[in-house]
Amino acid sequence: MKSGPVSKLISELSRLPSIGEKTATRLAYFILKEPSSYAQALSQAILHAKKTISLCSECFQFTEIDPCSICKNPMRDHTLLCIVEHPSNVFYIEQTRTYQGLYHVLHGVLSPLDEIGPQELKIQELLNRLKTSSQKFHEIVFAINPSIEGETTVTYLVNLLKPLGIKLSQLAHGIPAGGLLEYTDRKTIEKALSNRTEMS
Amino acid sequence: MKSGPVSKLISELSRLPSIGEKTATRLAYFILKEPSSYAQALSQAILHAKKTISLCSECFQFTEIDPCSICKNPMRDHTLLCIVEHPSNVFYIEQTRTYQGLYHVLHGVLSPLDEIGPQELKIQELLNRLKTSSQKFHEIVFAINPSIEGETTVTYLVNLLKPLGIKLSQLAHGIPAGGLLEYTDRKTIEKALSNRTEMS
Repeated sequence: MKSGPVSKLISELSRLPSIGEKTATRLAYFILKEPSSYAQALSQAILHAKKTISLCSECFQFTEIDPCSICKNPMRDHTLLCIVEHPSNVFYIEQTRTYQGLYHVLHGVLSPLDEIGPQELKIQELLNRLKTSSQKFHEIVFAINPSIEGETTVTYLVNLLKPLGIKLSQLAHGIPAGGLLEYTDRKTIEKALSNRTEMS
Repeated sequence: MKSGPVSKLISELSRLPSIGEKTATRLAYFILKEPSSYAQALSQAILHAKKTISLCSECFQFTEIDPCSICKNPMRDHTLLCIVEHPSNVFYIEQTRTYQGLYHVLHGVLSPLDEIGPQELKIQELLNRLKTSSQKFHEIVFAINPSIEGETTVTYLVNLLKPLGIKLSQLAHGIPAGGLLEYTDRKTIEKALSNRTEMS
C-alpha cells in the first residue's frame, strides 16, 4: 500500500500547508473509507473553485465576478482602502462586519531572502489605482501581519505613499479582547501601553 | 466570498477528520493560490484512489488487486494473523518491516453507543476465514488500540476464538522507546511493571 494511488493521494495531500505525512495518511484513509460521493464532492469542489475563481482586477481579491462584489458595491466607502497581505485576510476582516471600505491585496510581503521584491507584489497596481481611481481615497489602513517582513513592507509603502498626501493608519495593537495580562507577551503589553486610549 | 464555490470548498474540506473551519479556510485559499495544476493533481488523486482501491476479500485491507499483495505473498507467514481496527493500522505496522504474518481488518470496534455491533464488523468474515483457510493459523495477534471499546472488542473476540485452540496474543504495552519515566502516565508504568521482561 506504500506505492500506487494511495501514496499518490498522500503525497498530494501533504503539499497542503500544515499537513504533514502523518496527517495526510489519516486524511487519505478517511477519503477511502467514506462513500464515493464524498470523494466526488471534494474533488469537484476543488476543481470548480479553482476554475471559477480569479483575481479581481481592482483589489486582487479572489472573486467569481470582476470587479468583485466589494469593489462594485456602491454602498461601501470608496474613499477608504485597507491593504492586506493575502486574499484570506479580506475574509477574516469581512467576518467582523465592521469595515465598510475597499481592499487592496498585495499577495505577499517583501522578503529578499525568498526573492520577493516590490515587483512580485501588487504594489505598482496599488499606485495605478490610487492615481486613476474615479473617487479619491481619504485614508489607507494597513492590516499587515506584524512579522519582520510585514513591518518592512509597511515602512516601504508608507515612504512610497506619503507624497500622495493620503491619511495613513494601521490596525491597533494591544491586549486581545478578553485577554489576561498574565498571559500576554511583553511586546504586546508594551504596545498596549504606548497606544493606550483615553477613557471618556 | 462567504457564498459560492469557495465556501463549498471550505465545507467539503471541513468534513475531513481534525480539519475545522479555520484550517479548511486556510487550505481552500492555498488551493486557490496555487497553479491550476495542483488543483487538478489533487482532485485526480482523490478520484483515482477512491476508484481503484477496494477491500481485499480475504483480509479487508484497502487494495488495488484482490487478494491483496500481502495475502497472496507466499513469502509471508500464513500461519500468523494480526487483527487490527482500521486499514491504516496495517500501513503503520508494515512500516516497521518486522511483522511477516497476515492481517485481518475489523473496520471498527464494538461500540453499542454508536450502534456498532458484531454484525457491523468483519467478525463473521474472520470466523469463516479461520475455518476455511487452506493453511491453519498457529497464532492470532491482537493489535487493537487500548480504548474502552477496543478492549471490549478484544475480550469479545478472545471468548469467540478460544474454542478454536489457536494461540492468542496482543501487542506489549510499556514505556515507549526512548520514553522517560517522569513523562509516562501511571497506567503505562503499571503495565510496564507487570509485563517486565527478564534480562539475559
